Amino acid sequence: MSHPYRSHTCGALTKAEVGQTVRLSGWVHRKRDHGGVLFVDLRDHYGITQIVADEDSPALAVLDGLRLESVVTIEGEVKARSEATVNPNLSTGAIEVYARGVDVQSRAEELPMPVAGEQEYPEDIRLKYRFLDLRRETLHANIVTRTKIISDMRRRMEGAGFTEYSTPILTASSPEGARDFLVPSRIHAGRFYALPQAPQQYKQLLMVAGFDRYFQIAPCFRDEDPRADRLPGEFYQLDLEMSFVTQEEIWETMEPVIAGVFETFANGQHVTPSGSFPRISHADAMLKYGSDKPDLRNPLIISDVTQHFTQSGFGLFEKIVGSGGVVRVVPAPNTADKSRKFFDDMNDWARGEGYAGLGYVTRKGGEFGGPIAKNHGAERMEELYNALGLGPDDGLFFAAGKEEGAAKLAGAARIRVGELLDLVAKDRFELAWIVDFPFYEWDEENKKVEFSHNPFSMPQGGIEALQNQDPLTINAFQYDLVCNGYEIASGSIRNHVPETMVKAFELVGLSKQDVEDRFGGLYRAFQYGAPPHGGMAAGVDRIVMLLCGAVNLREITLFPMNQRAEDLLMGAPSPAEPKQLRELHMRIVEPPKPQD
Amino acid sequence: MSHPYRSHTCGALTKAEVGQTVRLSGWVHRKRDHGGVLFVDLRDHYGITQIVADEDSPALAVLDGLRLESVVTIEGEVKARSEATVNPNLSTGAIEVYARGVDVQSRAEELPMPVAGEQEYPEDIRLKYRFLDLRRETLHANIVTRTKIISDMRRRMEGAGFTEYSTPILTASSPEGARDFLVPSRIHAGRFYALPQAPQQYKQLLMVAGFDRYFQIAPCFRDEDPRADRLPGEFYQLDLEMSFVTQEEIWETMEPVIAGVFETFANGQHVTPSGSFPRISHADAMLKYGSDKPDLRNPLIISDVTQHFTQSGFGLFEKIVGSGGVVRVVPAPNTADKSRKFFDDMNDWARGEGYAGLGYVTRKGGEFGGPIAKNHGAERMEELYNALGLGPDDGLFFAAGKEEGAAKLAGAARIRVGELLDLVAKDRFELAWIVDFPFYEWDEENKKVEFSHNPFSMPQGGIEALQNQDPLTINAFQYDLVCNGYEIASGSIRNHVPETMVKAFELVGLSKQDVEDRFGGLYRAFQYGAPPHGGMAAGVDRIVMLLCGAVNLREITLFPMNQRAEDLLMGAPSPAEPKQLRELHMRIVEPPKPQD
Repeated sequence: MSHPYRSHTCGALTKAEVGQTVRLSGWVHRKRDHGGVLFVDLRDHYGITQIVADEDSPALAVLDGLRLESVVTIEGEVKARSEATVNPNLSTGAIEVYARGVDVQSRAEELPMPVAGEQEYPEDIRLKYRFLDLRRETLHANIVTRTKIISDMRRRMEGAGFTEYSTPILTASSPEGARDFLVPSRIHAGRFYALPQAPQQYKQLLMVAGFDRYFQIAPCFRDEDPRADRLPGEFYQLDLEMSFVTQEEIWETMEPVIAGVFETFANGQHVTPSGSFPRISHADAMLKYGSDKPDLRNPLIISDVTQHFTQSGFGLFEKIVGSGGVVRVVPAPNTADKSRKFFDDMNDWARGEGYAGLGYVTRKGGEFGGPIAKNHGAERMEELYNALGLGPDDGLFFAAGKEEGAAKLAGAARIRVGELLDLVAKDRFELAWIVDFPFYEWDEENKKVEFSHNPFSMPQGGIEALQNQDPLTINAFQYDLVCNGYEIASGSIRNHVPETMVKAFELVGLSKQDVEDRFGGLYRAFQYGAPPHGGMAAGVDRIVMLLCGAVNLREITLFPMNQRAEDLLMGAPSPAEPKQLRELHMRIVEPPKPQD
Repeated sequence: MSHPYRSHTCGALTKAEVGQTVRLSGWVHRKRDHGGVLFVDLRDHYGITQIVADEDSPALAVLDGLRLESVVTIEGEVKARSEATVNPNLSTGAIEVYARGVDVQSRAEELPMPVAGEQEYPEDIRLKYRFLDLRRETLHANIVTRTKIISDMRRRMEGAGFTEYSTPILTASSPEGARDFLVPSRIHAGRFYALPQAPQQYKQLLMVAGFDRYFQIAPCFRDEDPRADRLPGEFYQLDLEMSFVTQEEIWETMEPVIAGVFETFANGQHVTPSGSFPRISHADAMLKYGSDKPDLRNPLIISDVTQHFTQSGFGLFEKIVGSGGVVRVVPAPNTADKSRKFFDDMNDWARGEGYAGLGYVTRKGGEFGGPIAKNHGAERMEELYNALGLGPDDGLFFAAGKEEGAAKLAGAARIRVGELLDLVAKDRFELAWIVDFPFYEWDEENKKVEFSHNPFSMPQGGIEALQNQDPLTINAFQYDLVCNGYEIASGSIRNHVPETMVKAFELVGLSKQDVEDRFGGLYRAFQYGAPPHGGMAAGVDRIVMLLCGAVNLREITLFPMNQRAEDLLMGAPSPAEPKQLRELHMRIVEPPKPQD
């Protein structure tokens, strides 16, 4: 046994090694004193092995005197456990190692937080002592899963003919989108690099440079105010781009990759099979699910019943419809046994969310209840129910008003009804493409047309559509991939035609000069032979969260910052030396005190 | 043929497709007009296909009117080329495509630089129009090779049981090493993140956190003044770390990875086989090669002949040796036919490099020549030659003086003699470990002991050596991997013992408090159970350069900055908006004008 630290890892020993003398190294995970015999769970990255130090062992006193989480090397003999003490949940559960000797590699001080048992602990302590936190079973396993998911993504992307290119991290400030992190230049006083919010322009330049099938597990940076679902600072995207491609080809290329990754890490949960991801138009999604990221595990479908209320005894709806509004309904199937309170609570919830209210119809053995049914009339209600295919015990919620608000309320009600009635299928990953996003939207605040999402997308119909069509009716070749109510990827076919690009920006009030100023590198590149191209970017962190079943990004991130954008472990951000500031041609301007 | 852009790539068609109607898309690489018949080389990422547009084809006029580098889609029929026109250097050289129709996807403006032919062009134009530069054959191929090398590294590292972890890019300023890039915090006025110079502390923290066999293709950032062999800004390392490991295990683990990568991309050139990388102590390397990054393709070995000159008729050397200096020699084999000028030129070269001079002895048919031989005497010269195993026609160069300078001069002379005599084996990659680096060195300027390289390394002999040994005699468990005269990797076993760490810093005049202030995260972590660990980092860019046979980092980098640290394509660095500066609590301080 020439290796000074280990002949085996702590996850390796089985009955096959019984009788062998072995050397193991790891952390003292748990100790149990059984009156003169000490049992130690020795832990490393690979597993846990039970060490036994009996009265005869010189290791007993040493191990007895050590704090948990100290690091030791144990030499000893592998013995089979008795039938009764075999632990089937542990890869090494059939054996234990009788310690003959022990070397202490590192003594642990008193711990600021425990490792074994994963007791809840305040976040600041966990982040400051992240190296202890990361030893905990769940977080450790999540991080390992994360690395495996990313490796699997890479393998599948390469299998699909993609090549990974690294694009610059010190780059130019991007005038669109979120806030950039800036990096002052030492050589050029008063000038700044920016960290990329995404490699969008670079990946398009790669296509213009004649490469094809680019991908990158790309670090992205946004200096945004903390949000529950976004860590401050950096995040990762599976970013990809293809040349001479249609959006259908992108979908067909990526479905096997995404479905494959999900299947590999879904632990047997159902995943929408590759080749059968539904493709739902943005308009349909807003109608049927009241959301552009529908959770398809929820079987409820919203319907538009506006036509039923053009004339109605229920005056409020008739008035809404008469003034151009819509009426949308969310079924509440098999709610005959639900009390009136169930329905009233939904209405209260909707008001709490800032809506005018959520109407409803109850139905019990075919009998309608509630003010809408009463005023609209049972016969016309029956007609409506028949049109929707609803049954004699199904309730119905009504969201009425201007289209956008009604759709949103119906969407939120759909989620809530699905949850309250326990209709959402668990243990499934339901994937779907949301396609045909509108290219423009009406900016109510500034009373002008604005880009809905990505100004680099190709409008459907090209320059002719831009010239001849009402901008608000133009769709883009733009799509999202959604899973269980989350957007997990977003992409588009890009606008590679300079004249079309200029025209597209004109419609939101920007000139050719603006385009050149803001997107000079890309705009210039398009003058010298640009291929039609497109791609997408998937949120790695979100996918890992879904597959780990984690509810907080910190549970799947190695060294996250806290919500104040501080790295409590390394002490960042921190003050700079005066020399550094001088070199960077900068002076700090203290912000006014709050009381000023 | 449902795909609007291509049925095949431009590298795909062979005789098997003769007679088929195909669709291809790509760039107009070259055009040749053969009187009414136009030949177009159509290029994409995958290859080049010859398109023929004859008088009957509607494509003729369209293609004729297009500038080179325009992007087109061609529909046409695959025909076999005549025997005489088959091009065996082209994967599609057996066929050509007779164009029936053409769609222009993108018209190219007049080009600022040509693509076909790879004519030399000024660097600033190449960088500003990098998307054109990257279309050129050699650079395009280098970038593709780069991506393949990195992918191969990843595959081999995973095969060796390593897992890739991404460490933070927004992190804390590191007080040691090179200059950091700083990122001002918006939330914390006057505080800064730093971009990592290397993930050194994080990878060690990963080991303390109980992970094992970490690797990362890691972006690293140093705000250094431009150097010929270093691009401004960012570079990539193959970074790795292992727990419970000896340096021998690291070498044994990494030799198959490194040798494997080299063999895969060496195009048949010899690579030192895994398992047989020489391990040369730092002291030996300095003696035999006069360098800690020897080029082992050069067969010349430096010898120390100090003992031969303790008493010598050549007074200068006797004096040097008498005052503690050394005499080192570089053989110049088979130089009987070299003129006196060859030797004098070497002496001039040494003076030009700032040395006092390079002595020499000539030998022709056993006859010695030159002042050293004359004064030292032929008999004692013969004795010296016999001791070195030199022959009757071998010359000899002498570097004498203080050890460090003499070693350096001998090393430089070894390289030059090897080149001038054409002794350096071409087409080989000679890999070797340089081991046992000194832990400390004498800082002549500040008259104190300083760390030679990495203060985080474990000193050989541990704390006892630090307590009892002359610091300048202590070696570290520290090693470099060298190839053909370049350091391509560097690593060490780390010092994971807090007391040893404090003692090691004490010897360079730093206190425990200094250690805590500067390396708080890591130092704190070592208090709570740290495994013995070590690793290394290999320079990805350098390895790619060697394997591509490139002499400039810009030839293997996608979007490099120029030597003024500017991205001419994207226009970085650039001024910030006043609002951005306000948000970052910063004011620009203009540097004094040069004339002030």
